Amino acid sequence: MTDHASPADDLELRLRARLDRLTKPPGSLGRLEDIAVRIGLIQGTDAPRLVDPQILVFAGDHGLTAQGVSAFPADVTAQMVRNFLAGGAAISVLARRHGIVLTVVDAGVRATLPASEGLVVHKIAPGTADASLGPAMTSAQRDLALARGRDTVIARPGNVVLLGEMGIGNTSSAALLLARLTGADIDACTGRGTGLDDAGLTRKRAVLRRVLARHPAAIEPLDALAAFGGFEIAMMVGAALQAAHERRVILVDGFVVGAAILVASRIAPTVLDFCIHAHRSAEQGHGLLLAALDAEPLLDLGLRLGEGSGAALAWPLVEGAVQLLAEMASFDSAGVSTRIEG
Amino acid sequence: MTDHASPADDLELRLRARLDRLTKPPGSLGRLEDIAVRIGLIQGTDAPRLVDPQILVFAGDHGLTAQGVSAFPADVTAQMVRNFLAGGAAISVLARRHGIVLTVVDAGVRATLPASEGLVVHKIAPGTADASLGPAMTSAQRDLALARGRDTVIARPGNVVLLGEMGIGNTSSAALLLARLTGADIDACTGRGTGLDDAGLTRKRAVLRRVLARHPAAIEPLDALAAFGGFEIAMMVGAALQAAHERRVILVDGFVVGAAILVASRIAPTVLDFCIHAHRSAEQGHGLLLAALDAEPLLDLGLRLGEGSGAALAWPLVEGAVQLLAEMASFDSAGVSTRIEG
Repeated sequence: MTDHASPADDLELRLRARLDRLTKPPGSLGRLEDIAVRIGLIQGTDAPRLVDPQILVFAGDHGLTAQGVSAFPADVTAQMVRNFLAGGAAISVLARRHGIVLTVVDAGVRATLPASEGLVVHKIAPGTADASLGPAMTSAQRDLALARGRDTVIARPGNVVLLGEMGIGNTSSAALLLARLTGADIDACTGRGTGLDDAGLTRKRAVLRRVLARHPAAIEPLDALAAFGGFEIAMMVGAALQAAHERRVILVDGFVVGAAILVASRIAPTVLDFCIHAHRSAEQGHGLLLAALDAEPLLDLGLRLGEGSGAALAWPLVEGAVQLLAEMASFDSAGVSTRIEG
Repeated sequence: MTDHASPADDLELRLRARLDRLTKPPGSLGRLEDIAVRIGLIQGTDAPRLVDPQILVFAGDHGLTAQGVSAFPADVTAQMVRNFLAGGAAISVLARRHGIVLTVVDAGVRATLPASEGLVVHKIAPGTADASLGPAMTSAQRDLALARGRDTVIARPGNVVLLGEMGIGNTSSAALLLARLTGADIDACTGRGTGLDDAGLTRKRAVLRRVLARHPAAIEPLDALAAFGGFEIAMMVGAALQAAHERRVILVDGFVVGAAILVASRIAPTVLDFCIHAHRSAEQGHGLLLAALDAEPLLDLGLRLGEGSGAALAWPLVEGAVQLLAEMASFDSAGVSTRIEG
C-alpha cells in the first residue's frame, strides 16, 4: 500500500475522469472506454490521436507444406500476394474501405514477385526449410528476419500498425510455437487452418507432433522461432518489438499474428501493453493462445482468414473509441444535467 | 421432403456459391458471410448493395419517471436531443465518422425543441402519461405514433435504417413490454438503465411490478404498447414495420430498440427477416430479449448507451460484409489455385 500513485495510474485516472465528463452515463461505452484508456496510456496523454494507420501483411512460404499440412497448395501464398496487390483480396477490400495504407512484405515467398507499389521485398529465402527435417531457418536468417521486421515499421509513418500475414502452412508454425512456449498439448493447438477435413487434420496433428519432438532443445523463444518458422512470423516478431519500442498501437489479427506476439512477449513482456487483440478466430488453438496472452479480443465473428482481415474489421472500433473521447461534448459544455444519484 | 427448392433457397445457394468462389477459404469470413447472404435474401439478389444508410433516433419522454425509475432527470431527454443536433453526442460522432445521415425524431419530448436541420418533429404529446396511474398513451396516440414512424421511413432515401432512441425512463417501458410479451419475470427484465445504484434498481423493480399489475388486460402487443409506452418505442415499431415492408435492412441497436422490434415482430413476424442485431447490451434483460427474438448480435462490448450507438458501431461490419461479396476477386479471375482436398 502506498499513497503515491505512479504517473501511469495518475494518467489512467485522468482518462477515466475525462470519459466520465462526456455526455453519456459513466461506463456506458463499455470496452470502447477501456480501449480509449489503453491508447491514452500508450501515448502518455489524455488526448490520444491515431495517425496514419498502417496495415503490414507479411508473407512467406513454409517447407513443412511438403508434409501435407495444408488444404491449399503452397503456390497459393504467391498467388494471394499478387491478389493483395491487385486489390482483389479481403484485406485489399477492407484496407480500401477504411482508407488504410496496405503494405505487403515478401518475407520469404518462394516465387519471385513482380515489383509493385505496395510490395516491400525483404525475402530472407524462397521459403523456410522443412521443419520436420531440421530447423525451419538458421539463426542468422532468423536474426535477419527480426531486423527486417523492425525496418518495416521504422520505414512507415503513423502511430498504429495492423499486423497481418499470408503463408500456406503457417498455422502449423503458430501451433508449434504455441505448444512449445506454453506447454499446451500440440493436438489442442492444431486446427484445420484454411480448411482441412478430418483426415487432413489427423495427418497435420501427427506431422506436428513429430516436428515438435524433432526439436527438443528449441525451448527459448528465439530458438523455437528458428526451429518452427516461418519468416513472416519472425518478421512480425521484429515488427511488434519495434512498434512497442516506438509506442505505436499494435492491432493484432488472429492466430498466426498472435503466435508472433507470443514470441515477442517472451522476449519483451511489455509488448503486450501495446497490443489490442482484434478478434477471436475460429481456428483451433486461438482460445489457448488468447488465454496465454491474457487477451480478450474485440470481435468474435468466427473469422479464420488471416491477412490482417480481423484487424481491419476491428479498426473502426479502435478509431471510434479514440474519436468518441476526442469529439464528444462534456456535460458542462453541452448543458446536460448529470445524474440524480451517485 | 420435396425436390423443389423455393426461390429463396435457390438464391441462398447462389449467394453461398458466389461467396465460395471468392479468394478465401470457404466459410473463412465467418458471420460476415451470413450477413452478406441475409442482405442478399432481403434484396432478392446475389449482388446486394447498401445505399444511403439512415440513422433514425426517436426521442420521447416518459410520465413514469415521476416514480423515480431513472438515475438521470427527465430533462436530459431534451438536453441530449439538442446535443445530438449540435454534434456532441456519441451517436453524432459515430454518424460523422461513418458518413451516415443522422435524423432525430421528436416523438414526444416534453420540451419544445428549436427547429434544426436534422430534427423531425412528430411530437405526439409532451411525454407519455404515468403508466403507474393509467395507460402511457391512448390508442389514438399509439396509432398516430405508429403512422408517424412509418412516415419517417417513407420520407428517407436508401435501403438501410439504423434505429436508435433517447428517452429517460425508456428501459422501463422496454422491460415492461419484454415481461408482458414473453412472460418473463419483470425483475429479470429490469436493469440499471443509465446507471441506477442498488437501491435505485430495487425501487425501479418494485415500480415496474406495480405497473405490470396495473394493466392486466394489456396482453396483445398493441395494447401492451399503449399501456407501457413510450412514444419513441411506438414510432420505432411503425418504422420497423415500414422498413420491412420496403425490404430495407434494419440494423437494431440495443435493449430499447429491441423491445420495439419484439412488438413489431408480434404484429408481423417477418419483420425479423430484415433485422440485423448490432450488439449485446450490458443492460439486464437484453439477453432475454435477444433469446426471444432468436437473435445473435454482431458485437458484445458491454455497451449500454442507446442512441443507436451500437448500431453505428456495427455498421462497418455490415457494410464490409456486402463490400467483400461485391469487390473480392474470384479464384478464377485472380488465378489462385483452389484447395487440394474437399
